[in-house]
Amino acid sequence: MNAIEQSLAKGPEHPPGNAVTAATPSRPELPAQAFGEGKRADRWALSRLLASLGSPPIELAIRDGARVGVGSPIARVTFDSRATMLWVLADVPSRFGDAYSDGTVTVEGDLVSLIEAVDRAGRRTVGRRDPFAARVSRVLHRRHLNTLSGSRDNIHHHYDIGNAFYELWLGSTMAYTCAYYPTPDATLDEAQLAKMDHVCRKLRLKPGESVVEAGCGWGMLAMHMARRYGVRVRAFNISHEQILWARERAKREGLAGSVEFVEDDYRNISGRYDAFVSVGMLEHVGVKNYTALGGVVQRCLGGRGRGLIHSIGRNRPAPLHPWTEKRIFPGGHPPAPSEMARIFEPWDLSILDVENLRLHYAQTLRHWLALFEGASERVRAMFDEKFVRMWRLYLSGSIAAFTTGSMQLFQVVFAPGESNDIPWTRADLYAS
Amino acid sequence: MNAIEQSLAKGPEHPPGNAVTAATPSRPELPAQAFGEGKRADRWALSRLLASLGSPPIELAIRDGARVGVGSPIARVTFDSRATMLWVLADVPSRFGDAYSDGTVTVEGDLVSLIEAVDRAGRRTVGRRDPFAARVSRVLHRRHLNTLSGSRDNIHHHYDIGNAFYELWLGSTMAYTCAYYPTPDATLDEAQLAKMDHVCRKLRLKPGESVVEAGCGWGMLAMHMARRYGVRVRAFNISHEQILWARERAKREGLAGSVEFVEDDYRNISGRYDAFVSVGMLEHVGVKNYTALGGVVQRCLGGRGRGLIHSIGRNRPAPLHPWTEKRIFPGGHPPAPSEMARIFEPWDLSILDVENLRLHYAQTLRHWLALFEGASERVRAMFDEKFVRMWRLYLSGSIAAFTTGSMQLFQVVFAPGESNDIPWTRADLYAS
Repeated sequence: MNAIEQSLAKGPEHPPGNAVTAATPSRPELPAQAFGEGKRADRWALSRLLASLGSPPIELAIRDGARVGVGSPIARVTFDSRATMLWVLADVPSRFGDAYSDGTVTVEGDLVSLIEAVDRAGRRTVGRRDPFAARVSRVLHRRHLNTLSGSRDNIHHHYDIGNAFYELWLGSTMAYTCAYYPTPDATLDEAQLAKMDHVCRKLRLKPGESVVEAGCGWGMLAMHMARRYGVRVRAFNISHEQILWARERAKREGLAGSVEFVEDDYRNISGRYDAFVSVGMLEHVGVKNYTALGGVVQRCLGGRGRGLIHSIGRNRPAPLHPWTEKRIFPGGHPPAPSEMARIFEPWDLSILDVENLRLHYAQTLRHWLALFEGASERVRAMFDEKFVRMWRLYLSGSIAAFTTGSMQLFQVVFAPGESNDIPWTRADLYAS
Repeated sequence: MNAIEQSLAKGPEHPPGNAVTAATPSRPELPAQAFGEGKRADRWALSRLLASLGSPPIELAIRDGARVGVGSPIARVTFDSRATMLWVLADVPSRFGDAYSDGTVTVEGDLVSLIEAVDRAGRRTVGRRDPFAARVSRVLHRRHLNTLSGSRDNIHHHYDIGNAFYELWLGSTMAYTCAYYPTPDATLDEAQLAKMDHVCRKLRLKPGESVVEAGCGWGMLAMHMARRYGVRVRAFNISHEQILWARERAKREGLAGSVEFVEDDYRNISGRYDAFVSVGMLEHVGVKNYTALGGVVQRCLGGRGRGLIHSIGRNRPAPLHPWTEKRIFPGGHPPAPSEMARIFEPWDLSILDVENLRLHYAQTLRHWLALFEGASERVRAMFDEKFVRMWRLYLSGSIAAFTTGSMQLFQVVFAPGESNDIPWTRADLYAS
């Protein structure tokens, strides 16, 4: 067993090797001699790490020590010590984020560009069978298979950390999902409102109709539908904080009569509606529940009406990035098209329209990141520096995931198979 | 073993029971006493048949004999004898078409409406476990699993029966695929040209680019792309008759320099192109070859460019209607979304846009059927009455399949996952 394997095998039962918060896994103090003395061994280890990443055009360094990389690197990653480097090396996808968050890894240069370069290099290595990377991947994958459970806990982990925090950087619409930019120079708020209208137009909402929304966030789409399209909405969400915020807002805007916010799971939705909509919930549902979700849709629509599901997705089935899943979205899974089919096919639902808006999500995230950085002092005051770095990494990594094509954003319109109350063309979506 | 099972078990090795052409399977003469004497037993059998169809609002009758059905039937189906009725009863999906074709079954009323009613009733019975229907279904399904092979033979069966025949009813564009009607009152030729433009716009073709087409029919899309969009096209097809027609036409129109027609299988496509397009071929590919088709796409595009696949599809995996598969499209299979995913997912291709045009296919088929009926004397002179009735049933049944939602028409736009050379929105598709 070499030093890397030792560090992998030891894992979290060891006492922390340096001062970190309780949420950070412990790091064993590795005996220096396990890797040989001095810079030569460090250079070898950094080279190994660079190679396992597919040799992206970046520089890797240990503070006041060894460094490896190409001539004109996009960015430089510096480990504060050999111990940190070895600890990260043993499980890069999962530990890089933790080390970045607690500041034992720092980045000079643009963080988004760095992650894009690593993503693109990683894509090129797929199937190249680096045994080291393969072993890391196996370990990670094993852990992932057991995480899709406990929806309520998972949702609380992310969405109930404080509405005030999200208000700092989501813009005035409080929409925490991909916006739709009619042109790339639209503002965030314009694009979020355009997204709501795009969804409502795709659903062909008519005044007096009823809509059920599964996973309504802070309820702004539900209120927009009621206000602008004259429909009645029942909106479900299991985030307690969000539901309270949404109810308060609806009351203030005089919409309490047309929008009902229900603090309950999508599986408990009852009643008949003209339209079903779910924007940004599917990522939290878990593939094993997709057929049940389709059953809810079928029950809600009863052979007529329309539906729309908007979700982050993948080109092919793959788990969420392990650090994002562990620290940001426990239980999260962006589905591939074949996985999304499990919602529709068992219930004879016809897919009418799929639009991939992944470049719009990259743009949305750029706007969020800019607002977040502008408010970073206040975020630091609310939480701590580690939290700021963690969210900076998450937002930057998400931009990279959409620009490199690691992640997609699918908007899917569907209808019960026997219904012909479907649009003749999509031209009306684009009529001004 | 009862009389129905006897007739099912005997099958084609028995001598024909009445004068039919060689292509029609034989019908055993059933002893009348197997079902009891007289009208009462016939009524019982007709009722059984009606029930096995899910009790659609139609009337079933034996000529000069029993009849069953609802008060105001949509249409009446008359069997010329008890023997025909029992023969059909044993395997309705497969044998009804043959009996209709040879005229031993006749229909009063609208044939499309009749099939729509039967389709809708059948949809309602799914999962209701009629043991009779289930047994029929099992038998049919067993046969189906072994038919997806021999692409060249299968294609010749349908497409090489004579260009002159297709010229009678496809309109001037010779496009034998779903048209795109900007408005429902467009003519067939207008809609076929609009479809070609819709496809070219979705592919964002630019002058000077290269396009490869898999399954080009009579080559009219390839010629349209070269003529209107200034691209070079290599178009593949294994139908000898179609390739000859297409080459002749390209020469006559002075397009031989920009469009090359290759008589070869899509699996043998070589070279690099800016765009891949396939309109109406996937139905003949077979699910087991989808990953190979995706590999061809990936090889052709090499990490950049765009692709479009246009195909009949399903809401969920199901074999083609057994009679259509046997008499019209041997080896045909319209895929469900989860099956189509096997083209894209193994090769990291991003699905960018899916549009379901099933109502446009119903309209296209209505136009084809009207032209076909107008030319039925000439078709009869080319072939025979049985051929006319067979194609009438096929075209009528296809209309019903799209209006009842049994079949879908998916246009899928995709691009290599790592390419960001993808449209910002779809608004330009609808700019006039």
